[in-house]
Amino acid sequence: MINTLIEKIVTLNAPVVVGLDPMLSYVPKQIQQAAFEEYGETLEGAAEAVWQYNKAIVDAVYDLIPAVKPQIAMYEQFGIPGLTAFAKTCEYCKSKGLIVIGDIKRGDIGSTSSAYAVGHIGTIQVGSKTYSGFREDFVTVNPYLGSDGVKPFVEVCKKENKGIFVLVKTSNPSSGEFQDQLVDGTPLYELVARKVVEWGEECMGNTYSNVGCVVGATYPEMGKVLRKLMPKTYILVPGYGAQGGKAEDLVPYFNADGLGAIVNSSRGIIAAYQQERYASFGEGNFADASRQAVKDMIADITGAVAGQ
Amino acid sequence: MINTLIEKIVTLNAPVVVGLDPMLSYVPKQIQQAAFEEYGETLEGAAEAVWQYNKAIVDAVYDLIPAVKPQIAMYEQFGIPGLTAFAKTCEYCKSKGLIVIGDIKRGDIGSTSSAYAVGHIGTIQVGSKTYSGFREDFVTVNPYLGSDGVKPFVEVCKKENKGIFVLVKTSNPSSGEFQDQLVDGTPLYELVARKVVEWGEECMGNTYSNVGCVVGATYPEMGKVLRKLMPKTYILVPGYGAQGGKAEDLVPYFNADGLGAIVNSSRGIIAAYQQERYASFGEGNFADASRQAVKDMIADITGAVAGQ
Repeated sequence: MINTLIEKIVTLNAPVVVGLDPMLSYVPKQIQQAAFEEYGETLEGAAEAVWQYNKAIVDAVYDLIPAVKPQIAMYEQFGIPGLTAFAKTCEYCKSKGLIVIGDIKRGDIGSTSSAYAVGHIGTIQVGSKTYSGFREDFVTVNPYLGSDGVKPFVEVCKKENKGIFVLVKTSNPSSGEFQDQLVDGTPLYELVARKVVEWGEECMGNTYSNVGCVVGATYPEMGKVLRKLMPKTYILVPGYGAQGGKAEDLVPYFNADGLGAIVNSSRGIIAAYQQERYASFGEGNFADASRQAVKDMIADITGAVAGQ
Repeated sequence: MINTLIEKIVTLNAPVVVGLDPMLSYVPKQIQQAAFEEYGETLEGAAEAVWQYNKAIVDAVYDLIPAVKPQIAMYEQFGIPGLTAFAKTCEYCKSKGLIVIGDIKRGDIGSTSSAYAVGHIGTIQVGSKTYSGFREDFVTVNPYLGSDGVKPFVEVCKKENKGIFVLVKTSNPSSGEFQDQLVDGTPLYELVARKVVEWGEECMGNTYSNVGCVVGATYPEMGKVLRKLMPKTYILVPGYGAQGGKAEDLVPYFNADGLGAIVNSSRGIIAAYQQERYASFGEGNFADASRQAVKDMIADITGAVAGQ
C-alpha cells in the first residue's frame, strides 16, 4: 500500500493529506438545516450533516490530493449514526481514487489488537463468507503496549497489503510528558522509533515500509533526528497550519529523494471558509475555499522542500 | 461513579468484573446457527450471535457481580453491526443494574480526546437536543499522548459523574518494552502513575478517585509498588485466569480497607464451558458454566484477600 501512496504523491506532486475531522461547528448552517429537516435534531441528523459536508469537500479536492485522513473520534461522538457516516465517508473517498488513512489510534494486545486490525484494514470470516467491517488503507496505531499491540496490525498489513502509522512523537504541547523522557540519555520516542524500524523491516514496500510513523510538525528538531533514524519509514506529519507547524519546519521530515513525509491539515482545509484568508468565498462556497486552501498548502510545502 | 462501583463491590463482596469479549469461536454452535438462519452468514448475523451470547451470560451472572467490561475491539471487528451489538450490550447491562466499563483504550489530543469522551461517557448537543452516542459508566484510556489526551476525559468525568481507568502497566509480555524503561532510575509506568494521581485529585469520590488505573495481574511486584504510590486510585486488574495471574498474586493490589482493586476475567468466565473444569455443563448450558465460574472466581479472590 505504501507503494501506491508514494506513486500518487509523486504523480500529483502533493505530499499532503486532508484530515476529514468535522466538528458540527464547521458545517455550514444550510447543510445542518437540510439534514435536520430530513432527520430531525438527532444523531442521524448530525451524521447526515457531517456526511454531506465531507462529500462536498471531497468532490472539490479529490483530484489534487493522494489521500484523506478521517479522524474517527469526530464520528464516534455521534454513536452508531456517526460511525455509519465514517464508513460512508471512507467508501466514498475510495470510490474517488483516494487512499484512506483511518486516524483511529487504536492499540491493545494480542487477539484484541488483531480484532481492531481485522475490523479496519483486514477481513473477517463469518461462517463461509468473508467481510470487511471498515475498509481503510492505513490506520494509526498507539505503541504504549509494545510489540504485542503493534505486531497483530503488521500481520494484517502483510496479509492484506495495507499499512499503519505508529505514533512516535505527537504534535501536542504535553506530548513530552512521557514521550520525551530520557532512558539512558535517549528519549523514549527514539526507542519507539527503533521499534518502528524493526517492525517495518517485516513489511517493506519497494523503497519504504508499510509501517510508517507519526511525528508532529511542531517538533522539527526531533523530526530531523527521527528522519535519520528511520530512513525507510514514511512520516505522517500532523500539526501543520492550525496547530502552528510551518512549511519551512517540515523540510527535515523529507529525505533527499523528496519523499518520506506526508503532511496533514484538517481544520485549515475543511473549515478554510471560516478563516480570514478565504472569507471572501463565503459560507455557501465552503468547498471552493477548501480547494483553494489545498492548492495553497501544496504550493507552500513543495516550495519549501524544493527550495532546500 | 466510583462511589457507586465501590458500593456494589462491598454489597456483593465481589471485587470482580466480567469481560464481555466475545470471539465468534466462543459462541455455541446453536446460537450461531439461529443467528445465521435469521440474518444469513453476514456481519449482522455475527453481531446477532454475539448479542444473544452476551445476553444469556449477563442473565446468568448479573446478580453476582458489580460490573461488566465489554472490549469494544471484539465488536468493532464486525463493523457497524458489531458496534450496534456493543451499544445494545451496554444498554442491556445497565438495565440489569450493572456498571459498564467500556474497554476502549482511546486516547488522542484536545478536541479529539473530548470527542471520544463525549461519545462514550458524555453527552453531545445536536441543535437544541442532547444525546449520548454510547453510554458507558467508565472507559479505559491510553496515556501515551500525555495530559492533553487524558484531561479532556477527566473534564467529562467531572461534568457527568463518570470515571476512567488509565493504562499504567499492562498485563501483556511485551508491556515492558516502553512501560518499564527507567527514567532516572524510575520506570516509566511509575511516572504515568504519578500523573494518574495528579489527574485523579481533580475528580475525587468519597474515598477513591473517579480516575482509576490499569495494572496487569501478571506483574504483582509492580502492583505492590503502584498500590502504595496511588493509595486513592482504584486499580482495574486484567490478566487473572487465562493470562496466568493467580488469586494470591492479587493481594498486593488491594488496600488495607479490602478495597482498591477490581479484577477482570473475560475468557475464563464467558467461555468457561470450553474449559475442562466446567466441561460437564455441556455447550447447551454455557451460561450456567459461566455462573459457576463467576462464583469460583469470587471465592478464589475474596479468599486470598481475606487470608492475608
